[in-house]
Amino acid sequence: MIDLRSDTVTKPTEAMRKAMYEAEVGDDVYREDPTISKLEELAADLLGKEDALFVTSGTQGNQISVLTHCVSGNEVLLEKDSHIFYYEGGAISAFAGVQTRTLSSDKGAMDPTDIQAAIRGNDIHEPETGLICLENTHNRWGGAIVPLANMKAIFEVASHAYVPIHLDGARLFNAAVAERKSVREFTQYTNTVQICLSKGLGAPVGSIIAGSNEFIGRARKWRKRLGGGLRQAGVLAAPGIIALTEMVDRLAIDNENAKHLGEGIKNIPGLSVANSVDTNIVLVDTSEKGIPSKTYVEKLKEAGVLAVSFGPTTVRMTTHYDVTKEQIDEALGTIQKI
Amino acid sequence: MIDLRSDTVTKPTEAMRKAMYEAEVGDDVYREDPTISKLEELAADLLGKEDALFVTSGTQGNQISVLTHCVSGNEVLLEKDSHIFYYEGGAISAFAGVQTRTLSSDKGAMDPTDIQAAIRGNDIHEPETGLICLENTHNRWGGAIVPLANMKAIFEVASHAYVPIHLDGARLFNAAVAERKSVREFTQYTNTVQICLSKGLGAPVGSIIAGSNEFIGRARKWRKRLGGGLRQAGVLAAPGIIALTEMVDRLAIDNENAKHLGEGIKNIPGLSVANSVDTNIVLVDTSEKGIPSKTYVEKLKEAGVLAVSFGPTTVRMTTHYDVTKEQIDEALGTIQKI
Amino acid sequence: MIDLRSDTVTKPTEAMRKAMYEAEVGDDVYREDPTISKLEELAADLLGKEDALFVTSGTQGNQISVLTHCVSGNEVLLEKDSHIFYYEGGAISAFAGVQTRTLSSDKGAMDPTDIQAAIRGNDIHEPETGLICLENTHNRWGGAIVPLANMKAIFEVASHAYVPIHLDGARLFNAAVAERKSVREFTQYTNTVQICLSKGLGAPVGSIIAGSNEFIGRARKWRKRLGGGLRQAGVLAAPGIIALTEMVDRLAIDNENAKHLGEGIKNIPGLSVANSVDTNIVLVDTSEKGIPSKTYVEKLKEAGVLAVSFGPTTVRMTTHYDVTKEQIDEALGTIQKI
Amino acid sequence: MIDLRSDTVTKPTEAMRKAMYEAEVGDDVYREDPTISKLEELAADLLGKEDALFVTSGTQGNQISVLTHCVSGNEVLLEKDSHIFYYEGGAISAFAGVQTRTLSSDKGAMDPTDIQAAIRGNDIHEPETGLICLENTHNRWGGAIVPLANMKAIFEVASHAYVPIHLDGARLFNAAVAERKSVREFTQYTNTVQICLSKGLGAPVGSIIAGSNEFIGRARKWRKRLGGGLRQAGVLAAPGIIALTEMVDRLAIDNENAKHLGEGIKNIPGLSVANSVDTNIVLVDTSEKGIPSKTYVEKLKEAGVLAVSFGPTTVRMTTHYDVTKEQIDEALGTIQKI
Repeated sequence: MIDLRSDTVTKPTEAMRKAMYEAEVGDDVYREDPTISKLEELAADLLGKEDALFVTSGTQGNQISVLTHCVSGNEVLLEKDSHIFYYEGGAISAFAGVQTRTLSSDKGAMDPTDIQAAIRGNDIHEPETGLICLENTHNRWGGAIVPLANMKAIFEVASHAYVPIHLDGARLFNAAVAERKSVREFTQYTNTVQICLSKGLGAPVGSIIAGSNEFIGRARKWRKRLGGGLRQAGVLAAPGIIALTEMVDRLAIDNENAKHLGEGIKNIPGLSVANSVDTNIVLVDTSEKGIPSKTYVEKLKEAGVLAVSFGPTTVRMTTHYDVTKEQIDEALGTIQKI
Repeated sequence: MIDLRSDTVTKPTEAMRKAMYEAEVGDDVYREDPTISKLEELAADLLGKEDALFVTSGTQGNQISVLTHCVSGNEVLLEKDSHIFYYEGGAISAFAGVQTRTLSSDKGAMDPTDIQAAIRGNDIHEPETGLICLENTHNRWGGAIVPLANMKAIFEVASHAYVPIHLDGARLFNAAVAERKSVREFTQYTNTVQICLSKGLGAPVGSIIAGSNEFIGRARKWRKRLGGGLRQAGVLAAPGIIALTEMVDRLAIDNENAKHLGEGIKNIPGLSVANSVDTNIVLVDTSEKGIPSKTYVEKLKEAGVLAVSFGPTTVRMTTHYDVTKEQIDEALGTIQKI
Repeated sequence: MIDLRSDTVTKPTEAMRKAMYEAEVGDDVYREDPTISKLEELAADLLGKEDALFVTSGTQGNQISVLTHCVSGNEVLLEKDSHIFYYEGGAISAFAGVQTRTLSSDKGAMDPTDIQAAIRGNDIHEPETGLICLENTHNRWGGAIVPLANMKAIFEVASHAYVPIHLDGARLFNAAVAERKSVREFTQYTNTVQICLSKGLGAPVGSIIAGSNEFIGRARKWRKRLGGGLRQAGVLAAPGIIALTEMVDRLAIDNENAKHLGEGIKNIPGLSVANSVDTNIVLVDTSEKGIPSKTYVEKLKEAGVLAVSFGPTTVRMTTHYDVTKEQIDEALGTIQKI
Repeated sequence: MIDLRSDTVTKPTEAMRKAMYEAEVGDDVYREDPTISKLEELAADLLGKEDALFVTSGTQGNQISVLTHCVSGNEVLLEKDSHIFYYEGGAISAFAGVQTRTLSSDKGAMDPTDIQAAIRGNDIHEPETGLICLENTHNRWGGAIVPLANMKAIFEVASHAYVPIHLDGARLFNAAVAERKSVREFTQYTNTVQICLSKGLGAPVGSIIAGSNEFIGRARKWRKRLGGGLRQAGVLAAPGIIALTEMVDRLAIDNENAKHLGEGIKNIPGLSVANSVDTNIVLVDTSEKGIPSKTYVEKLKEAGVLAVSFGPTTVRMTTHYDVTKEQIDEALGTIQKI
């Protein structure tokens, strides 16, 4: 089986397993886990923020961020296909009591003018705009990179209106590597950010949120409420440190493999590629073939390739650490056959 | 002053005041107010539902409906300029914990195909679609009438997916009168409905929600939690009965006055009318003049005409019981001058 | 029928009906209802607070107060039989997301030392104490008056810990009249207060909350979200003004009638009085007779006296404007017979 | 340093570290992690329930259970010093919108009659009783064992009223070992249960909830919303399996060590033991000495013994895997000196 369903399926590397085995640990609720502290310092520094916090998933990092930024009755602006809106079970409304206001976008990049227009005024009938959420790279837009200039322009609009920005950067490192920029160049235009250790970076479990000292202080309590206060969490932090220090540069390979996969698919009659393949995601369009994506995913599976349905006639394929270029070629062969 | 800000500004008629004075009352929390009972029976019958409940405002009626239909973590589908989404302070997310998913529309009429596509499946990442909200007439679309055929088509999609429909019919009677239909023809395609007694119908306070016996039974408890359980509420039900029995037909006059006002404005150089004036609302576009709506509203006020800003260059004017055709002509004269 | 179920059953007086009939009104959402403004100014002055807000019920006033004082994740301290905890459907947890922490009391008066001990510290495991709620007179303690000295002592503890105090003063005027004090003497030891116009004071509908300008400003928005923003609310404010100006002193009669009723019941073999009858409520204990309260209430009803079950062998009888001393004697006769 | 603060401070054993290193893993969001599956099956079987779910902490397990059992506006009955009420940040009210109703107890065992009386009826003023939470052993009652007969009696009351029971069994194995019973004997009187792998059982991270298939199916979605859906979670499940299979019996040693510690403290003048030391917790009372617990904890720390303040003059000491009998003797020596 060649598993292109998600970069979440990667298994921890030998180095990560060894790091877990040897991890120096303590009780992190008492803030005595040295490996967690080391990871959080490292991450804060990489992300250019005062402080950082280990959380158990990207969803948890996003939820904590919304809970910390907002109060009940606020409105959150986000892209209409963003993960927070689309794939987190409506949790920000269930837990933080905030209303979601979605905007359309150009491949994940919302128009600053639209954001300006959507920020609420001081009317007794209207919720207060409490937060703007960005996502980079943008999952449902096929791993699209939201341009730095767009982030900067939105940050200016937001700052002017005193509305904070949270970046769902679950795959931010894929964007940074593709653009040969540091992640700090992106995070400078956000108040807070969430990044995943467990997707392309290969750690088994965990994400990071980063922001000001004051923000992380309050976020820590919301993490506890959500059940994310762990004990000897150093066993997860240890592979997380490897993820941040040794696995970032190799994302270039995933990005190249995705480009290679995309090029190959374009040459297969009846299939086309629905996204620009900026990073490690290829969206395959099966509409010309008239095959529903779910049927196509089934056929692929029978033939030994795993992918996910991402819309009526859209199939997502994701490259990652556990898929080699050779396997991509093999997958292309399989796809051509069916 | 000619007050065209809203049909909410109407003052109770002499008959309504007399009805309040004479109202037979009881403690409605004990369900012993005969006038409330009479109003609720009358309303249920008019709206073609098993039961009805008096509430203190349209917002309260909508909030109770969402609280009764949904549980926390659900998603609600609604039009992106609908009152529930735009003008209720994000309350459905704050109180019911539901996520709002907005759809665009053709003058308030959402596309049944879009609704079909937006209904969520059974995925662990996604909220469950708990409710679809319609609005007819549609306030921010300038009192536009959502066609019956559209409502029927949406009802079919919704029923097929076992998702209930709530209609915000704050101004449903304006639609019914304009189309020479009974309100029942509209409400047959909804599970529940909210109508206002206090807009074009002229009652000082109150709205009605209607639905099945089971729905109203549970709604009654949510009304209590929201503080809408009143004592001698018959003093408000008495004018409400007059609203439903004596004030409906005369909405035709408001609709005509609005048409007359709209025609007049079209003839004024520099102004245009942004909506089709289906009912009692005229949206005046000031963009050609290059005047921001807020400035224009100020100028109108100085000249003796009250209206409201409804967008950067959009001004809303609403006709109602307390504005005569002569006053419309007078207002047109004033508008022409400035 | 002699109705001793509640002082909520009183019907509006002729003067109140006339006031409704003649009320000068406007659209209160636009803050243009002169009668509402007059009522709110009058109430703020009476209660010794900067500003006041008309709400549709005591429950709504309490809910708005909690929503305005607290944020989700806070804890509220209140007496274990208080109305907010016992009779508001769990709404403060449902809407404001606050945890209720109840304390026992001496006839409604909580021990300041208990409150001191219950205020949470700065621990990551614990909710923040966001509010202390008092109730005076205390309904489930049989209209007991919480002594001024107790309120003062609690206020000192609370102020020291920077925790605000809200007083559910639905029947505060009964306490004030009984103690020959102004209500201001009580409200000086609270940050905010809710009082009812519709219980002993006889208005058909409505309550008031009062507090600082800043508090009322934010409360106004929560009232809108709850659906308590009314249109020509002056029709309710007009009898409310009469309630506050003409009906307060006569509460002394209700208090005396209750004392008279209590004395009479004490003389009836098999019955005893469970409370000290500080104000207008008598709690009748049927345990000696071995009759469950619900059965006893049924028997009373058959004999022409209405009361409510208030516990397994406790029956509540409440005096009010619509019950005369003669009727109390008649009721006593009936009670003796059965 | 001898660390008696909590059994949460235990570090993973060599066997656990090795199990992590070797764990067979998969993506648990896709339900493909074989080690997680193995752990969940094992736990379900041990706990006598149809299905089980790995969660990241006891708090998360409790929160998910409340979210799955209840809807907003429900009331939850729990002991007034229970962990869910006392130490989870008010999260059940913040997230599930439920009101907490606390009952007093005899060493953690609530009176079934009190529970019977506290279950709400069908009144429009009252929240619906949605859940009863028990805790065994009971942390704030010093690891007290709630007797099986008490659990049975409460289960009968609850079943009769159709109210489910959730057991916070974070330290249930300590109770089972002390009473030489299987945990199933306790869980038979509950609908759902949460147990911790990371306290006395020594796993670095994680807890388990167990219940019916239907319950766990819905719980899985709430876990996702809380951010507890992990990827290669098998690295945490592997030590969890060791916790359940190899670490349970040795809890007897912790229980004995605590008894030994308690006996020793009783013999130190000025100190007494506030609990009956049923399991692995000793509550030391410093009131006779007139020393506040916080000061005493500081002094202990300087002398090389770590404990936690648990009340104004109560200090909690907890035995666990990483404390030997020799260290207990050493700690007793230290305590005697100061």
